[in-house]
Amino acid sequence: MKRCIAITTGGGDAPGLNAVIRAAALAAHRRGWEVLGVRRGYAGLLNTEETIPLTRDNIRGIAHQGGTILGTTNRGDPFAYCERGETTPRDRSDEVVKNFRQLGLDALLCVGGDGSMRIAHKLHQKGIPIVGIPKTIDNDLSGTAVTFGFDTAVKVASEALDSLHPTAEAHERVFVVEVMGRYAGWIALHAGVSGGADVILIPEIPVNVDAVCRKIQERERSGRHFSLVVAAEGARLDGATVTREEAKPGGVERLGGVAERLAERIAERTGKETRSLVLGHLQRGGNPTARDRIIATRFGAAAVRQVESGEFGVMVALDPPQVLTVPLAEASRMKTIPLDDDTVLTARDLGICLGDE
Amino acid sequence: MKRCIAITTGGGDAPGLNAVIRAAALAAHRRGWEVLGVRRGYAGLLNTEETIPLTRDNIRGIAHQGGTILGTTNRGDPFAYCERGETTPRDRSDEVVKNFRQLGLDALLCVGGDGSMRIAHKLHQKGIPIVGIPKTIDNDLSGTAVTFGFDTAVKVASEALDSLHPTAEAHERVFVVEVMGRYAGWIALHAGVSGGADVILIPEIPVNVDAVCRKIQERERSGRHFSLVVAAEGARLDGATVTREEAKPGGVERLGGVAERLAERIAERTGKETRSLVLGHLQRGGNPTARDRIIATRFGAAAVRQVESGEFGVMVALDPPQVLTVPLAEASRMKTIPLDDDTVLTARDLGICLGDE
Amino acid sequence: MKRCIAITTGGGDAPGLNAVIRAAALAAHRRGWEVLGVRRGYAGLLNTEETIPLTRDNIRGIAHQGGTILGTTNRGDPFAYCERGETTPRDRSDEVVKNFRQLGLDALLCVGGDGSMRIAHKLHQKGIPIVGIPKTIDNDLSGTAVTFGFDTAVKVASEALDSLHPTAEAHERVFVVEVMGRYAGWIALHAGVSGGADVILIPEIPVNVDAVCRKIQERERSGRHFSLVVAAEGARLDGATVTREEAKPGGVERLGGVAERLAERIAERTGKETRSLVLGHLQRGGNPTARDRIIATRFGAAAVRQVESGEFGVMVALDPPQVLTVPLAEASRMKTIPLDDDTVLTARDLGICLGDE
Amino acid sequence: MKRCIAITTGGGDAPGLNAVIRAAALAAHRRGWEVLGVRRGYAGLLNTEETIPLTRDNIRGIAHQGGTILGTTNRGDPFAYCERGETTPRDRSDEVVKNFRQLGLDALLCVGGDGSMRIAHKLHQKGIPIVGIPKTIDNDLSGTAVTFGFDTAVKVASEALDSLHPTAEAHERVFVVEVMGRYAGWIALHAGVSGGADVILIPEIPVNVDAVCRKIQERERSGRHFSLVVAAEGARLDGATVTREEAKPGGVERLGGVAERLAERIAERTGKETRSLVLGHLQRGGNPTARDRIIATRFGAAAVRQVESGEFGVMVALDPPQVLTVPLAEASRMKTIPLDDDTVLTARDLGICLGDE
Repeated sequence: MKRCIAITTGGGDAPGLNAVIRAAALAAHRRGWEVLGVRRGYAGLLNTEETIPLTRDNIRGIAHQGGTILGTTNRGDPFAYCERGETTPRDRSDEVVKNFRQLGLDALLCVGGDGSMRIAHKLHQKGIPIVGIPKTIDNDLSGTAVTFGFDTAVKVASEALDSLHPTAEAHERVFVVEVMGRYAGWIALHAGVSGGADVILIPEIPVNVDAVCRKIQERERSGRHFSLVVAAEGARLDGATVTREEAKPGGVERLGGVAERLAERIAERTGKETRSLVLGHLQRGGNPTARDRIIATRFGAAAVRQVESGEFGVMVALDPPQVLTVPLAEASRMKTIPLDDDTVLTARDLGICLGDE
Repeated sequence: MKRCIAITTGGGDAPGLNAVIRAAALAAHRRGWEVLGVRRGYAGLLNTEETIPLTRDNIRGIAHQGGTILGTTNRGDPFAYCERGETTPRDRSDEVVKNFRQLGLDALLCVGGDGSMRIAHKLHQKGIPIVGIPKTIDNDLSGTAVTFGFDTAVKVASEALDSLHPTAEAHERVFVVEVMGRYAGWIALHAGVSGGADVILIPEIPVNVDAVCRKIQERERSGRHFSLVVAAEGARLDGATVTREEAKPGGVERLGGVAERLAERIAERTGKETRSLVLGHLQRGGNPTARDRIIATRFGAAAVRQVESGEFGVMVALDPPQVLTVPLAEASRMKTIPLDDDTVLTARDLGICLGDE
Repeated sequence: MKRCIAITTGGGDAPGLNAVIRAAALAAHRRGWEVLGVRRGYAGLLNTEETIPLTRDNIRGIAHQGGTILGTTNRGDPFAYCERGETTPRDRSDEVVKNFRQLGLDALLCVGGDGSMRIAHKLHQKGIPIVGIPKTIDNDLSGTAVTFGFDTAVKVASEALDSLHPTAEAHERVFVVEVMGRYAGWIALHAGVSGGADVILIPEIPVNVDAVCRKIQERERSGRHFSLVVAAEGARLDGATVTREEAKPGGVERLGGVAERLAERIAERTGKETRSLVLGHLQRGGNPTARDRIIATRFGAAAVRQVESGEFGVMVALDPPQVLTVPLAEASRMKTIPLDDDTVLTARDLGICLGDE
Repeated sequence: MKRCIAITTGGGDAPGLNAVIRAAALAAHRRGWEVLGVRRGYAGLLNTEETIPLTRDNIRGIAHQGGTILGTTNRGDPFAYCERGETTPRDRSDEVVKNFRQLGLDALLCVGGDGSMRIAHKLHQKGIPIVGIPKTIDNDLSGTAVTFGFDTAVKVASEALDSLHPTAEAHERVFVVEVMGRYAGWIALHAGVSGGADVILIPEIPVNVDAVCRKIQERERSGRHFSLVVAAEGARLDGATVTREEAKPGGVERLGGVAERLAERIAERTGKETRSLVLGHLQRGGNPTARDRIIATRFGAAAVRQVESGEFGVMVALDPPQVLTVPLAEASRMKTIPLDDDTVLTARDLGICLGDE
């Protein structure tokens, strides 16, 4: 049966989005289906002109590129839509349903994080045949073992530590590197273990700055005159909750809070030259690793098979080595690091300070 | 209790060996234990002088380096030991047991592939308290979900495809790239899906060369005047078993069999300019990816915890997200790609030719 | 004055071609000119349909990609044109001139190696206003200090040596790596010095295989049980001229001659396990380095300025820090390595064997 | 004649320092000389115990590593020496001369930037036979065409732009990336041309923020809803001189001034979401590129040949393709970008905004 499906990408971009788009389009073409790309997340469905046909030609060579050819946005919730400049959100979800029908679509694939999956769930309840595809750089989505973007982010952060290591050592300095992770510290933990960090600070473990300084001084005494600290942006210093000016529309997001504050305190208490660095969007935009390309490609193909099966309201998920589905209703819980996680135990076994002792 | 443990690396080298060594040494030091490194695999235990103490200083900065600071060899089976130049193997395993005791060792960590795990099992039966750590670039070991080295090999092969893609397209050529995998095609499959191959040939699926040529000609007709073929070294052309001159001691190993023969036949049948390339040791020696460093580091630390637990004769293994152990007796079975593997299904969904249709 | 210029890329592809195309197109657009891309080298001018307008959109994001969006060919000499399947070349240069006029072109930019520059010179003599842009991976063109492609090739070869180093050391092997350079050994020399090779073999210095083996054995005696040899494909073993089956149209080019033969002889004479590897097209197709992108971009812009100046029959060239022009008549001489080149002296100072002592 | 030479590295570290050390040591060993490494710049000569013999073993495998095995410091001027905690600098240069003699040294190689070369000149005037080796990431040293470290810094910055490009485009944002360059904008200019920046801001051209915003808005109107701005840390917004809190001993250096302020103003005036990123030490510590390794290696070897020649008080310098020497007295002038530099012309030809129109 000839079908027409659409795909959209929402929330922050992650390396692998284009590989999902390409795989879904190829798998659909192979079944003789048409594929539309919806631009700028769900918001693109508020306007039937925001779609482009995804042909063999316009998905060429995109799998290894970062970003998303469809664009994305953090402001696309049709249940609480807020045009730039407006202040009162409106529920425009009925328009999405109407446009979905007017475009003659048989299914919608939506790629996104926890927010996007919640919206997908609500759209499914309003009758749209939807399949979710999980995306989160931070690896903080509970429904899937892992998803694309995370491996690339860990690679970037780990390579940054590799780069800073020799300059830290040559100048006998302390470096504090801030990585992504507001609520879950997966990137910090994995990059820190991979990149040989001396201290790893994650939101799951309240940070005792004294313990951090003790670790640095202990290294000093044993002849290691430098230290590398990696801190998730959501790490909580001395039990405080990080206050963070949130991005305002059209405004400048301030990153760098934790690293800068921690660096100041380390310098003050230990007397060591201390520098901070915020990796920020470098973790997000790069070309996906081979592993992320594969996961993204598998998800794109699996989502199309799911459409073929006729069962909607689910998200594809990785349960290695299988790809299976979980109900959208259950897909969007936060996955933080358990304190008995094997990589946490490994970090402690290596003598890495986790800020708590 | 003060203990002394030893660690050795056997078989072909894989990116991540040094990260295992470092992690095991740090985890042991943290418990106040001493650690010896045994040089050149089990063969190093035939001679008590082939050990070096692994101190904090000689494991510095090694985690991100390829190779192994302990050296390795493919000729170290103490149950069938064959000195260079000799032709009749001898069972020298008793000497290993004797030297193990003479060195005052409490446990032996051995890092290796299926061959090394079989030897470890036999040494354990002779009374050596041993913990195995799996290593295989090819990902063909059944006891563990995955192990270190594979991710790096896939990355290298995938990047090679990325490099060849534009030159293939500019010159309207076919490229055949030969990757590792004598019995299992994991590297070819994953690199091919990641790197956008048009044809992926693996040992698990007998290759119909006509089907391969049809795929190339079909692309030609649709305006794609180039193709990328990735072939595992063990791919069987037209049902034949690959005959391969094996490496002789001191001799020159001939690689490149499959790619070269396939390229000749493609050129002959399709009339397309066709080039072959054998990636060979480039897949093996590079710096480990962040992911491989993490797996290797977790294995090293887990093996030390296993020694602490007092249970031997097992291999550490990854069962995501956990690291657990499996009996050495069961650790060394070959893991080939099931034909319903999700990545195989994905490849077919993308229209990639797997050589069988 | 509104003009229309064309650009074409000929000969083997080199990283940076797309950056030249983009820069030339942008610089021409900025002057209000139109730009046509001619596909597949000069051969594209035998057929007015082989041109595509180069607009802002179809040159987007190409600067960092290998290959050439215009395609290329080694068989495009219009003075001795030989269609695939034909055996007698014909002079079709008059057609090129006719088509150039029919397309209403004001100038032709041709990017290519020594062969392309010779053709450019002859076309200029027939009245086509032409500006050459030098391209050679091998760095063997005399008219310019350096050109794009070379830096990328050296990087790829140097990184290959980095990858092979740890596996060579772990297994106590000799590796022979064959790199590009039929007549000039620039890639071998630079990659070898950068990548820590023990032996570097270039076409400019006849190779005494005994000297090579002595170096390997001397390292063996001093406790270095491995060696890295890098050989240009045109290196001459024991004074012989390399005979090499040349690529035949539609045929399979055999690479790997020198490395394989040398590896066999080293293994034979030294008894060391020796492996060979042919880098081949990996040196050619990858993404250009930042430096190659800059050189290529500068050349593309300079060629357009040259068109504006109205002086033709020249090739742009790098004379650091300037870009200037040289007459096409003088542009195509071969540049081999002088024996007193500073990098040669450096190699000798480091104790690297150059095959002659 | 048996000699003993020493080598020291001063100022900020740069990728390639270890390659210089290795090359100089190998070239000296080959002449039968002894080599001492002086730790922490000239300051190491205030204390004869701060030297280590550089043997074949402790320089193994260092050429491709960032940092410097000798350590470095920004506080080592013996003519105005200021111990940590002290506030009044003292002239301790006589101690350096005395220790140099007491160590029985025949020559000193000093690797450093303009400050180090000035000190070298003064030490030479006090009788120390000294050869300088230029080091500057910023490429702002006039005596040499280029030196090591710069190519790596450009690569890192160019790759950062590559990474930010897709995320900027996906989110329709402006990114401002701050790179090194207090007085000279070479890194910004080269990385910007290579990485496809839309705006490049350098200290040599006062920045008219209105011009920058016009460029961004002009792109917006033509359908490019994102822009990449690269700014040297010394770029002067609206004619102001950047005031910058200088690093205090033991304190935290604040980077990020220019990018953050510029991002705020762009957001304000254009209404575009704008993000800033400070690359900081990522440009400094990474592994040197192949090109930087070669330059560094050539400099190390050339410096030893210079010692052999017996002529001191000079700095080795690159005048492609030669390495020659310039008097130390003339070596330390600042090299800024001339406004008619070919890469500047190229940037303008591509339509890149340089902040002045």
